[in-house]
Amino acid sequence: MYSYNYLFEFTKNVFLKMGCSEEHSEIIADVFLAAELRGHASHGMIRIKDYYELWKAGRINVNPDIKIVHESPSTAVVDGDNGVGMVPARRSMEIAIEKAGTAGTGWVATRNSNHFGIAGYYSMMALKHDMIGICLTNANPLVAPTFSISRMMGTNPIAVAIPALKQPPFVADFATTPIARGKLAVAEKKGEKVAFGFVQDKTGKPSDDPSILRSGGSMLTLGGDRLHGSHKGYCLSAVVDIFSAVFSGANFGPFVPPSVAYLPVLEKKVGEGTGHFFGAMRIDAFQPAGEFKSKMDEWIGTFRSSKPAEGEERVLIPGDPEREAEERIMMEGIKLVPAIRDDLVAIAGELNVDFE
Amino acid sequence: MYSYNYLFEFTKNVFLKMGCSEEHSEIIADVFLAAELRGHASHGMIRIKDYYELWKAGRINVNPDIKIVHESPSTAVVDGDNGVGMVPARRSMEIAIEKAGTAGTGWVATRNSNHFGIAGYYSMMALKHDMIGICLTNANPLVAPTFSISRMMGTNPIAVAIPALKQPPFVADFATTPIARGKLAVAEKKGEKVAFGFVQDKTGKPSDDPSILRSGGSMLTLGGDRLHGSHKGYCLSAVVDIFSAVFSGANFGPFVPPSVAYLPVLEKKVGEGTGHFFGAMRIDAFQPAGEFKSKMDEWIGTFRSSKPAEGEERVLIPGDPEREAEERIMMEGIKLVPAIRDDLVAIAGELNVDFE
Repeated sequence: MYSYNYLFEFTKNVFLKMGCSEEHSEIIADVFLAAELRGHASHGMIRIKDYYELWKAGRINVNPDIKIVHESPSTAVVDGDNGVGMVPARRSMEIAIEKAGTAGTGWVATRNSNHFGIAGYYSMMALKHDMIGICLTNANPLVAPTFSISRMMGTNPIAVAIPALKQPPFVADFATTPIARGKLAVAEKKGEKVAFGFVQDKTGKPSDDPSILRSGGSMLTLGGDRLHGSHKGYCLSAVVDIFSAVFSGANFGPFVPPSVAYLPVLEKKVGEGTGHFFGAMRIDAFQPAGEFKSKMDEWIGTFRSSKPAEGEERVLIPGDPEREAEERIMMEGIKLVPAIRDDLVAIAGELNVDFE
Repeated sequence: MYSYNYLFEFTKNVFLKMGCSEEHSEIIADVFLAAELRGHASHGMIRIKDYYELWKAGRINVNPDIKIVHESPSTAVVDGDNGVGMVPARRSMEIAIEKAGTAGTGWVATRNSNHFGIAGYYSMMALKHDMIGICLTNANPLVAPTFSISRMMGTNPIAVAIPALKQPPFVADFATTPIARGKLAVAEKKGEKVAFGFVQDKTGKPSDDPSILRSGGSMLTLGGDRLHGSHKGYCLSAVVDIFSAVFSGANFGPFVPPSVAYLPVLEKKVGEGTGHFFGAMRIDAFQPAGEFKSKMDEWIGTFRSSKPAEGEERVLIPGDPEREAEERIMMEGIKLVPAIRDDLVAIAGELNVDFE
């Protein structure tokens, strides 16, 4: 078990050695550790190696000059200068929050960025300003539109954070696919099948094989199949892609660059890097903040007291599982599986950073 | 078969006789007929009776005084004064478009409204202004959160319309449930079962009985069950509810008033009427409009040319089925099933309006 502080310092030191500034290294460590605490280890320490390899391959910029390239009172387009995704993402959300301060809402589309960790992190930045936070991003293509077998979209997540008064905030943060890609990898390692409705083979036939992506298969959108509404998941994923990439001038759909160095740079570009989209909405642009937050307490209380189905203990509010994980993991510490620990030990050796 | 113009005039005359102004009656007829043309008959002529009965019961205001009650440069809250939903909804979207004209984006939350027809109609109002349009609404509670058997949410739709240049626009308009409620009613009338994944019985057991809502059952959120991501559909539906009702001061979740007169007025109120949420985003607040729309052509062309699965002819872009329905129905005319026609003949008789 590792403590939060130990892994934070380690992560910060890795990115410092890669050439990131003190400020940027702390932002990056903060986002990695937030993923670990919130129980999304798939976006935590396991990913450090990906960024390290991208850096070694000269495919990521550790000293980005992040700039607003276009703006209106409530909007901006940000160029992330191919930085480590967390850095342009955090700056973009800050700009959205600044815009909301004066215009009521702020909306920032970001291009020329890279994988930024968990979307929920940026949406939650709005909460302490009495704002609602929104974050979308596109990602490497693995997912097929309804009726198709082509990998056209990423797992394109949506995060929305809404403050309450006495209740903890409402935080939704979810991929627009039935499951995260990481769950396929886990099942594959264990030699297990997965449920139908997650993936299809290269002809479009339903599959329960978690390794099917290696043989031309693809992931399905939320809904699974047309009968169960996969076209709605396709709509959602498409909207995330368009807001993230077409608003910003990033690569869309099948042209989103890989977030790992073992996949080659794509031949065709239709924009710059990966795209994100951020929103901040000042509550008192709609309702006095106290009244709104007290009404959110009532909303949360009402939904939390809805009747559980037979065999279920309780009904959850979006954000409950992650908050409970955070409380538990902060106390118990963060566990790294041996393979990830070995990767980090190797990186620590190469960069001359302490880690054991 | 009826012509578009005949049903438009009839619908307009029905609402004129109920006391709506000429302008409001035309708006209402326009939205009803848009639903018919776009192949969403469940939100078309079949619903006229519901509004007529609500009016007879004194539960809807045909002369609403629609007012902005709060605003910022990019936002407004609108009170719909219990009007026929289309009227406050159209006015609210106009305000969102006006706000976007000056602030880059415009966001309007509307309370004290009623069922407004198809969400796609309002999102599409933005297109001719070179804006992206967004529309959300809450609705009568029929849907249970994940792990619950309580009917806490409506089928809470999301509509997003995005303009292109030579390609037709991208228009997503979908309920956050696997299927629309109307499809359950159709299966029930035919005495057919439905697929599992749409509804559950009163204990939370999966059901294929389309009449299960009559015996304490509930609809499921997009995803169907927890394993297949129903918690993501729950997140979406909850966000629609909070944006529509908590931002505006309307009733949320289980307190949304019925849109039919045969269901009693609810005892508990937590706000005013039904709530909607509208957004307009000026394209050139992000990118020059011509460049953006030409990039959307490229996006649409790329996705339309993705490879169909075995047995499928083509991959669709959101909005394709509705646009094709519109072209066909505009030519062929609108068919009304005998039961709906009989209802309309009866209403026409009572109001002394021509209809045959």
